[in-house]
Amino acid sequence: MAVYTAVDEAELARFLAAYDLGEPLSLVGITEGVENTNYRLETTLGRFILTIYEKRVDPADLPFFLGLMLHLAEHGLPCPLPVRGRDGAMLRTLAGKPAAIVSFLDGRSVRRIEPGHCAAVGGALAAMHLAGRGFALHRANALGPSGWRRLLEASRSRADEVAEGLAGELQVELETLERAWPRGLPEGVIHADLFPDNVFFEGERVSGLIDFYFACDDILAYDLAICLNAWCFETDGAFNVTKARALLTGYRARRPLAPGEVEALPVLARGAALRFLSTRLYDWLNRVPGALVKPKDPLEYLAKLRFHRSVSGPSAYGLD
Amino acid sequence: MAVYTAVDEAELARFLAAYDLGEPLSLVGITEGVENTNYRLETTLGRFILTIYEKRVDPADLPFFLGLMLHLAEHGLPCPLPVRGRDGAMLRTLAGKPAAIVSFLDGRSVRRIEPGHCAAVGGALAAMHLAGRGFALHRANALGPSGWRRLLEASRSRADEVAEGLAGELQVELETLERAWPRGLPEGVIHADLFPDNVFFEGERVSGLIDFYFACDDILAYDLAICLNAWCFETDGAFNVTKARALLTGYRARRPLAPGEVEALPVLARGAALRFLSTRLYDWLNRVPGALVKPKDPLEYLAKLRFHRSVSGPSAYGLD
Repeated sequence: MAVYTAVDEAELARFLAAYDLGEPLSLVGITEGVENTNYRLETTLGRFILTIYEKRVDPADLPFFLGLMLHLAEHGLPCPLPVRGRDGAMLRTLAGKPAAIVSFLDGRSVRRIEPGHCAAVGGALAAMHLAGRGFALHRANALGPSGWRRLLEASRSRADEVAEGLAGELQVELETLERAWPRGLPEGVIHADLFPDNVFFEGERVSGLIDFYFACDDILAYDLAICLNAWCFETDGAFNVTKARALLTGYRARRPLAPGEVEALPVLARGAALRFLSTRLYDWLNRVPGALVKPKDPLEYLAKLRFHRSVSGPSAYGLD
Repeated sequence: MAVYTAVDEAELARFLAAYDLGEPLSLVGITEGVENTNYRLETTLGRFILTIYEKRVDPADLPFFLGLMLHLAEHGLPCPLPVRGRDGAMLRTLAGKPAAIVSFLDGRSVRRIEPGHCAAVGGALAAMHLAGRGFALHRANALGPSGWRRLLEASRSRADEVAEGLAGELQVELETLERAWPRGLPEGVIHADLFPDNVFFEGERVSGLIDFYFACDDILAYDLAICLNAWCFETDGAFNVTKARALLTGYRARRPLAPGEVEALPVLARGAALRFLSTRLYDWLNRVPGALVKPKDPLEYLAKLRFHRSVSGPSAYGLD
């Protein structure tokens, strides 16, 4: 769970005075999410999400994130719409931290993922990639290949505490991926964190994409590779080729993949696995005893990395 | 019922090619509304409303209407968000007419109006007035006091066909209101047509305000007077003071009324009644035999006009 910053009634009233959202009726902390403080805010005007940005988010990136959500919502994507205050600004300060209000989305994330959900997520991801074209701002991917070396160096000396030989294995993997990383593939704005808890459904229809706080410019098919890891493995670690086929087919129905993108999928999926393995490893080694947020198991992503290293080609993902 | 412009599959596909909304799944005509053609459009990305603007709407006004919805939605009001195409434009052409896609809103209009609905509508109207501040575009009210004379002249010679002595009564009323119309009251963007079919509820909470195609700049309290007529009379013509008190109290909780605004309510309500009486009278006298849209009864608004003429002051609306 995670509600980091408490807000009292007087602070909330002062904050809301900058908006035309009516009187607050309730403010309830949302325990999902580990990066920011999120409240479900109900006012006489409706339901909203109030987000207070914690230290993991660089305030300089917030105009990109909020501007992107605005751009995507205006282009029809079901994502939160940032709410402007009376002065037109979407971003202001609450409890001494940057904060914003966005619209509330109906639906809920799925616990039991079926292939139909994967197909819908593929379609929604493609829709996001298409709708992101024309967005004027840019943000480099700090957690892309150029960031992995630094990230792994911060954990290398203690990586073997997590699994014997891990430091060496990751060093070899890093060097392999740095050499093999594809160039010239289509790029654009990617979500970069489209895990199941960031997708809301009503039935098998996607009703919301949330949490754009890792969004950046990068290879579009890399975003698909992140989803392959996040959506297509069972909890016992087994790769589910039916779900992978559904995800890729759903994506390709909306945005066809070039042959080079298909060919690159195994390498991109290894890179995506290394990226989440790296941050999870760091968080695991630097966890604070007694902290409310339980760090995620880095070894889950080591297994995924090894799987993608073992495949003979993109046909392993159910592609013809 | 009203679906004026048919759209075939090929036309729809060409139109949707300008957007990133995925593949169309269904297009169903909406029979409510009498001004424009509305379709409920479902695509692989979600649910939307497709509106084709018919001849009653001046295309020159569309940037105002669409820009206003965008502005209000961005300020947190639950109103349709116009969807931008790939080129950034919200307005384009379908079947030779101006057309736009807006987001779909949940909820439904109420058939059986309770005082709680009136309170909620009052609050939502105030929220719209507050959120409208800062909107850069302007539009004069063609159906405001300066338009009534011309509108009534078009019906005067045949008004007595509808009720004996009507022409004379309306002429006196017009001249009275022209003299008595208040000056110097707070103005801003008003909805100008917030009838029960233009407000969606989920329970007693307003979940959507729609149909901004009469919106314009005018006296804010005049918008409240329009709602007094539209929400606070029973179907038998009786004025329901409990509903009026709820409406006004709901409004004042969000945007306090100045003494001059309260004082002017009876005159504003007479003007609001005359406005709808005038257009209904014209439509009634010029109805096309066999047309699908049944004209609304002008006499309903004659009774409302007479009621407001009879009141001794704003206390008749339940105000202390």
